[in-house]
Amino acid sequence: MKKANKKVNAIIVVIGNEILSGRTQDSNVMNLSKWLNELGVKLEEVRILPDLEGNIVKTIKEVKKKYKYVFTTGGIGPTHDDITSKSIAKAFNLSYGYHKEAYKILENYYGVSNFNKGRKKMAKIPNTAKLIFNPSSAAPGFIVENVFCLPGVPSILKSMLGGISDKISGGKKIFSKSINIRTVESEISLELEKVQNKYKDVDIGSYPFFRQGKIGVSIVTRCTEKKRIDACYKQIVSFLKKKKLK
Amino acid sequence: MKKANKKVNAIIVVIGNEILSGRTQDSNVMNLSKWLNELGVKLEEVRILPDLEGNIVKTIKEVKKKYKYVFTTGGIGPTHDDITSKSIAKAFNLSYGYHKEAYKILENYYGVSNFNKGRKKMAKIPNTAKLIFNPSSAAPGFIVENVFCLPGVPSILKSMLGGISDKISGGKKIFSKSINIRTVESEISLELEKVQNKYKDVDIGSYPFFRQGKIGVSIVTRCTEKKRIDACYKQIVSFLKKKKLK
Repeated sequence: MKKANKKVNAIIVVIGNEILSGRTQDSNVMNLSKWLNELGVKLEEVRILPDLEGNIVKTIKEVKKKYKYVFTTGGIGPTHDDITSKSIAKAFNLSYGYHKEAYKILENYYGVSNFNKGRKKMAKIPNTAKLIFNPSSAAPGFIVENVFCLPGVPSILKSMLGGISDKISGGKKIFSKSINIRTVESEISLELEKVQNKYKDVDIGSYPFFRQGKIGVSIVTRCTEKKRIDACYKQIVSFLKKKKLK
Repeated sequence: MKKANKKVNAIIVVIGNEILSGRTQDSNVMNLSKWLNELGVKLEEVRILPDLEGNIVKTIKEVKKKYKYVFTTGGIGPTHDDITSKSIAKAFNLSYGYHKEAYKILENYYGVSNFNKGRKKMAKIPNTAKLIFNPSSAAPGFIVENVFCLPGVPSILKSMLGGISDKISGGKKIFSKSINIRTVESEISLELEKVQNKYKDVDIGSYPFFRQGKIGVSIVTRCTEKKRIDACYKQIVSFLKKKKLK
């Protein structure tokens, strides 16, 4: 089961100098990841790239073969630093220019007299791309083969996900169960490793936390088989009880 | 000047299933990026990888050649899913085992009787690594050639940066100047592109924002030469005034 699910994987390519410069805190990765989990798609990698065409083209060429789904965020707006659409066209050897359907959507939205050159740029999309409907601000995202291009503004991105869920053939949903305990990792690491060795199909993660002055560890179990998680979780709770940590 | 600075670049490799699963919001990238900016190092890429040794080894082998500095975050704790140290040893063909100095630091910190097997794991570091002092929780980070391995917990990571600043030979500091205006990108994109074409050595970024019900655009200029930023910024303000946006 795990093997089959493994192939339903994805990468997110975040495009934007503002994330690399530390100016903006990315939140799209977390939102997309949760949405992918629900659809049974495992996010296996993220790359954050600057607004440089060469880098983007090279990366897309590489990752579109490596992963079932590729999601890009950012770089599809009207300004000079928005170069995702052009880069995707190059990565797929497609022509880049006004996309009829996108042009119509945007012309309708802005009205003919306000549809200036900047706005028209957002209708420039690889010619054979399928559009992703944007209910918040009209400018569409697009799909070329297995690459889904989404905007960088988190609220707009989120509003567009509903329109593409049916285009994702997910694997089994990934379930998770977690427990927070007041201890430090080094107190439980050996026992946890033993459980992990017994349940190789369950991903067991251990994450220290420091919240509101309290120190603790979150143990998170993840698997596509709910029964396996339950059994694994039981063993963890059992050793925690023995250590008087639960 | 820009060319010289370009070579003083870095990549961050975030190691951790918890970021990919959407469970944890990464904040280390933003913190490290700001710190690197101060030191004149340009963060040019980020990769987020799962806790899989093969992936980590392959990525480190690739990026240590490509970038002047490589920073890893996460995976140096005491649990079974902490595999960064072992992976780095493999990437550099170094032996992996108890590092004398690290062992001493940890033994002192925990006391001989509490220095259990889990805690001892944190002393397992590539044998020729230089240690990074950890003032918060003792367990050291380490440096192998141009690869700096830091922990995943943001507060601990931050506490360790002071100890490595002198090991980074930065380029020129990158200055930035930004302006927020009440408009939409498509109103200013053409003029902004003209300024960008004139000031090719200045990175001009345009970022729409939606804050507290207000719509606007942040224009950010970045360059190692303060004078060039000032001149470029002046031109931006000038066209904004003409458009009655400022």
